[in-house]
Amino acid sequence: MKHDIVFYTNPMSRAAIVHWMLEEIGQPYRMEVLEFGSPMKSPDYLAVNPMGKVPAIRHGDSVVTEAAAICAYLAEAFPEAGLLPAPEARGDYYRWLFFAAGPVEMALSLKHAGFSLTAEQEMQFGCGSYEAVVDTLARAVAGRKYIAGDTFTAADVYVGSHIGWGMQFGTLEKRPEFEAYWAGLKDRPANLRCEAFMAEAMASQTGADGQPTAL
Amino acid sequence: MKHDIVFYTNPMSRAAIVHWMLEEIGQPYRMEVLEFGSPMKSPDYLAVNPMGKVPAIRHGDSVVTEAAAICAYLAEAFPEAGLLPAPEARGDYYRWLFFAAGPVEMALSLKHAGFSLTAEQEMQFGCGSYEAVVDTLARAVAGRKYIAGDTFTAADVYVGSHIGWGMQFGTLEKRPEFEAYWAGLKDRPANLRCEAFMAEAMASQTGADGQPTAL
Ligand SMILES: N[C@@H](CCC(=O)N[C@@H](CS)C(=O)NCC(=O)O)C(=O)O
Ligand SMILES: N[C@@H](CCC(=O)N[C@@H](CS)C(=O)NCC(=O)O)C(=O)O
Repeated sequence: MKHDIVFYTNPMSRAAIVHWMLEEIGQPYRMEVLEFGSPMKSPDYLAVNPMGKVPAIRHGDSVVTEAAAICAYLAEAFPEAGLLPAPEARGDYYRWLFFAAGPVEMALSLKHAGFSLTAEQEMQFGCGSYEAVVDTLARAVAGRKYIAGDTFTAADVYVGSHIGWGMQFGTLEKRPEFEAYWAGLKDRPANLRCEAFMAEAMASQTGADGQPTAL
Repeated sequence: MKHDIVFYTNPMSRAAIVHWMLEEIGQPYRMEVLEFGSPMKSPDYLAVNPMGKVPAIRHGDSVVTEAAAICAYLAEAFPEAGLLPAPEARGDYYRWLFFAAGPVEMALSLKHAGFSLTAEQEMQFGCGSYEAVVDTLARAVAGRKYIAGDTFTAADVYVGSHIGWGMQFGTLEKRPEFEAYWAGLKDRPANLRCEAFMAEAMASQTGADGQPTAL
């Protein structure tokens, strides 16, 4: 499993989550930066990810898509990085990884797009209401340095990214629980390297109106 | 980790996924059936799952919510059941577990609710378009008996449930790839036990109009 890693990315995207994860893992990787639009929908890239989206990685014969899946995969493929939780914290680990990848993603996207759900739809949709999701997430991180057990894990990279960037881009409201949790993560050297890379990419790639563009 | 398992469920819900998984695991468990509405929003149950939704499980000190997380957790907690893939198939395992829990859930819910996305929203939403999600899922199972490696795993329980029940309830269109994959899974004894239980519950619990109600 010690092959080099190829990382398919765009600096202004959810791929930043995987970038941070790769920096935590500390293994060599090669970046393939894809522009939004046709480069992401080329036959070559659709063979990697038929969704035509970033992030994706190739590691030996494995191709992995979905930011959360890539975090879970890398933590397991490189156990020496210590990003897996202790056995007794595996329940929380999977719970919050999937909660962020499912209900949090869905509720924040719906809200951002201005869709609202009827009471019946809230029962059917995995995310229920935006308020329930945000309350549940706040309770999950309240008073905790890490979301699964006593050590930093891949779930902190993933959930922390949703919280940190969600507050920064305004898709997630600010709450004291979120601020405290994010404050304990954001200065990790791996995240700082990733943020510096993003800042540089943003500075060089500004939209027609002179504003940086981001998804 | 050998404590009994408590399974919080309602027979007419996504909890059926976890029911199937528990039957595959073959460990004793105790069912707590919760009716929709106020029983799921009681303070006691909100302490288990602040979302007020099923499924959830308690296993010793671990509480796990999110059907996909419970599948991943149980596969790992009971390795003797053989529901984890070989190391070289872990990339596919996580990829398709998270793809089903994220984009598939979201795209099918949006379509069912009649929400449609603009081209820009398709780039921002993790699910892109319904068509892209269904095509990607069809390619993932095409010509495969199992979705991750050569053995039946927890990812087949989860992805298979989405495909089998999605086609049955009409939230997922029928495709030959889906039918072939589901045909290879549906007659597993664990699933048949779970379906018999659901059928019995449906027969005894009909709505005011004499029709079974399901979410
Ligand atoms: N569910 C995917 C979502 C990936 C995604 O939506 N990526 C966006 C950027 S943040 C993208 O590549 N959009 C370009 C497009 O859809 O054409 C994940 O979590 O990795
Ligand atoms: N993301 C959750 C979704 C759970 C969910 O939405 N469950 C529904 C039944 S299928 C529910 O309990 N609805 C009742 C309610 O929201 O009050 C999962 O995958 O487990």
